[in-house]
Amino acid sequence: MSKRDPLVIVGAGLAGCVLATYLARRGYPVEVFERHGDPRDAHLATRPSLNITLCKRGISALERIGAQEIVLRAAAIAYGRKVHALDGAVAYQPYSNTGDALFSISRAALNDVLVSYAEAQPGIRIHFNRRCAQVDLAAGVAHFEDTTTGATNVVQAERIFGADGAYSSVRQHLQKTERFNYSQQYLDQGYTTMKIPPLADGRPVLDAGAIHIWPRGQRMFIGFPDREGTFNCSLLLPYRGAHSFETLRTEENVLQFFQELFPDAVSLVPGLVEQFFARPPNSLVTIRCNPWSYGDKVLLVGDAAHALLPSYGQGANAAFEDCRILDQCIDECGGDWRAVFREFEQRRRPSLNVLADLCVEHFVELTEHVADPKFLRRREVERRLEEVYPDLYQPLYSMVSFTSRPYAEALRISQLQSAAIDEIVLIEGIERSVDRPEVRRLLSQSLRGAGAA
Amino acid sequence: MSKRDPLVIVGAGLAGCVLATYLARRGYPVEVFERHGDPRDAHLATRPSLNITLCKRGISALERIGAQEIVLRAAAIAYGRKVHALDGAVAYQPYSNTGDALFSISRAALNDVLVSYAEAQPGIRIHFNRRCAQVDLAAGVAHFEDTTTGATNVVQAERIFGADGAYSSVRQHLQKTERFNYSQQYLDQGYTTMKIPPLADGRPVLDAGAIHIWPRGQRMFIGFPDREGTFNCSLLLPYRGAHSFETLRTEENVLQFFQELFPDAVSLVPGLVEQFFARPPNSLVTIRCNPWSYGDKVLLVGDAAHALLPSYGQGANAAFEDCRILDQCIDECGGDWRAVFREFEQRRRPSLNVLADLCVEHFVELTEHVADPKFLRRREVERRLEEVYPDLYQPLYSMVSFTSRPYAEALRISQLQSAAIDEIVLIEGIERSVDRPEVRRLLSQSLRGAGAA
Repeated sequence: MSKRDPLVIVGAGLAGCVLATYLARRGYPVEVFERHGDPRDAHLATRPSLNITLCKRGISALERIGAQEIVLRAAAIAYGRKVHALDGAVAYQPYSNTGDALFSISRAALNDVLVSYAEAQPGIRIHFNRRCAQVDLAAGVAHFEDTTTGATNVVQAERIFGADGAYSSVRQHLQKTERFNYSQQYLDQGYTTMKIPPLADGRPVLDAGAIHIWPRGQRMFIGFPDREGTFNCSLLLPYRGAHSFETLRTEENVLQFFQELFPDAVSLVPGLVEQFFARPPNSLVTIRCNPWSYGDKVLLVGDAAHALLPSYGQGANAAFEDCRILDQCIDECGGDWRAVFREFEQRRRPSLNVLADLCVEHFVELTEHVADPKFLRRREVERRLEEVYPDLYQPLYSMVSFTSRPYAEALRISQLQSAAIDEIVLIEGIERSVDRPEVRRLLSQSLRGAGAA
Repeated sequence: MSKRDPLVIVGAGLAGCVLATYLARRGYPVEVFERHGDPRDAHLATRPSLNITLCKRGISALERIGAQEIVLRAAAIAYGRKVHALDGAVAYQPYSNTGDALFSISRAALNDVLVSYAEAQPGIRIHFNRRCAQVDLAAGVAHFEDTTTGATNVVQAERIFGADGAYSSVRQHLQKTERFNYSQQYLDQGYTTMKIPPLADGRPVLDAGAIHIWPRGQRMFIGFPDREGTFNCSLLLPYRGAHSFETLRTEENVLQFFQELFPDAVSLVPGLVEQFFARPPNSLVTIRCNPWSYGDKVLLVGDAAHALLPSYGQGANAAFEDCRILDQCIDECGGDWRAVFREFEQRRRPSLNVLADLCVEHFVELTEHVADPKFLRRREVERRLEEVYPDLYQPLYSMVSFTSRPYAEALRISQLQSAAIDEIVLIEGIERSVDRPEVRRLLSQSLRGAGAA
């Protein structure tokens, strides 16, 4: 190993491990410091864990560091969603007509794979149980406390990368600098995680080729398949009011609530009540800030720079894409790291701001409009347009999930097409057939406006 | 004085003094703790000070506590603005055709008047040099450190009001509570203050019945008259780049810059260079947060709850209006303080959010569009509409400054009328005459849409 000061990464979560691998492959010595213990020490099945859905953006970024195969081998493939109505009816919605899929994996399993992958790279050392206690931004010095012994370790870094998530301690030090822009916005809802294990013979209890959703306005139950036939589920509830984390206090409350809102799920979740009460709910927050860097010394990536609501399932994908684009910026800016950091932020921040807005809007859409007949009719028309005009129309969700188009560009196209769809839904009888010359004309005009045809 | 625990107000600035007076008049014992020393100890003329422009909203709130006369007696009256072009030409723009005016006073002078007025109320005690070191939100206990002796004073309050400005320490404790929403957004520009004293005989060097503006895009010099014939000036500059606080480093730089951008102001400002370098620049920030209260124990008011850009001169006015509306909420909710705080926030926060947006937009307008011929033509048409149709059209600036209409309602009306003006500006030759039947029709239709006719 060279005598150079290392690049220090704070956080060995999803973003930290991928970033470490990108940087080590350029020949830099990389030291990663993680607050928690080695995730691989705990048995996977017993760890509570959010689910991650990887899509094209995230996978492309993994591909460039050779980690695509090892990750996808550990994931389940979902080609669509199954929507469970209150009366037990199940409707299947494929993600596209061309086989687009999401790769579903628990955060815990994905983290294990990525930690092992990073650790196997020459030049990377990962230190667990190291809390980032202090960062001297200008000097590039970080202080880590060993949470098992209490000892402090002072590290002189060539550069420091904050990949330490929504509650980033690196960002906290940036927040103390002058005129730092910062915003944290919480949802009124939180979530708790539950698991649906496979049957005794190992078969999954639900179709493991789909994501299962029980949408009930402000409340939602959602199950993501994993490779082992388990479903990692999230239960979304308001914090306050009727049927909320505040009011569901007793075993009886919880059972009755489930029987009322998700009757067909009750028998699927063993120890439903115990699972519900096992952990306090997790909050859902959107965090934005700028600048993301301090001179040429410190840079935030992933959730530390831009925590998103999970509405589009983009958090991990966006973090991996950050790493890929940072790598491009290093290519383009030579050894000028100040320029690298500036270019990275210029390229990424507008898109991430747009994505953060989209996630908030999509969340409101999911929880508030889902029962609005006008909204549902429009959705149906959009679905038909996608089917009949695959060359002229792609819904925003697909552009976000199944392409690598910059988020901001996807939104611009969607807005222009939305104006066309405003006109299309007014056409008499459109829900019976979208195959009409004026529809094709409106769609292709709108695409010309987007400069995307 | 009763044996009840006092209402504690943190901050004896503009909001704190007015709030103290409102609460004391209801018979509550009020203790005010101010971090700085008694402002009246320092000689006014030597204190750097922002200028405050009071308008109808602020004045109505002062009127209800009987402080209107004493404040207005200390203020200069401005009936319009004088815009100084680069070539020395000066254009006068009256605020309205009906004598609407702004009352201009330095923040320091206004604070002195309000401190004295509050102190004279029975039931109010003001403690200076007391830094709020800790707030126990649930218990309603505040810890104050005497900044002269270092001693700590623990105060059991019936309720605690954070009137301690944009960098509120009370809010810092709310920020540590779960799921607190918070945002701080800085402008790329900052400002420094300067003074233009009167002539030796006491006469002001500029027309003291107007606010003087030297708009130069991202840079601006602005002078506010005060009662003594002094102009309190602000110089707005970017922090970075050409002609910025970063690059204006030498005496020569500053003089040359002034001669280039504000040639006719150079001779008005004695010790221009010394004044420029006397203090570091002040930043300009928009702060939003919610909730503004903690149970029935703690409430934020004024800048602590909603720091605004100065674009509309609304900061102090909005803070005073907060006090008036809080007083109304106390009337309406009886002794239920939880309801008072909730009602106050419900009534105020949407309006203050709208106002914060307006201030940011108006700032961009001022600095970016001011040289755009299309923008200027539209402005001129609006001015003519106001003149010819005073019953049908009032510009947004006037609704904000010269009425007590809720900010959110003013914006709604303005948006509806803006759509009408979009059509009006397209009319051939409209800039020569706005007195046409179709113009009257468009304006009155738009007002019907606003439900405000």
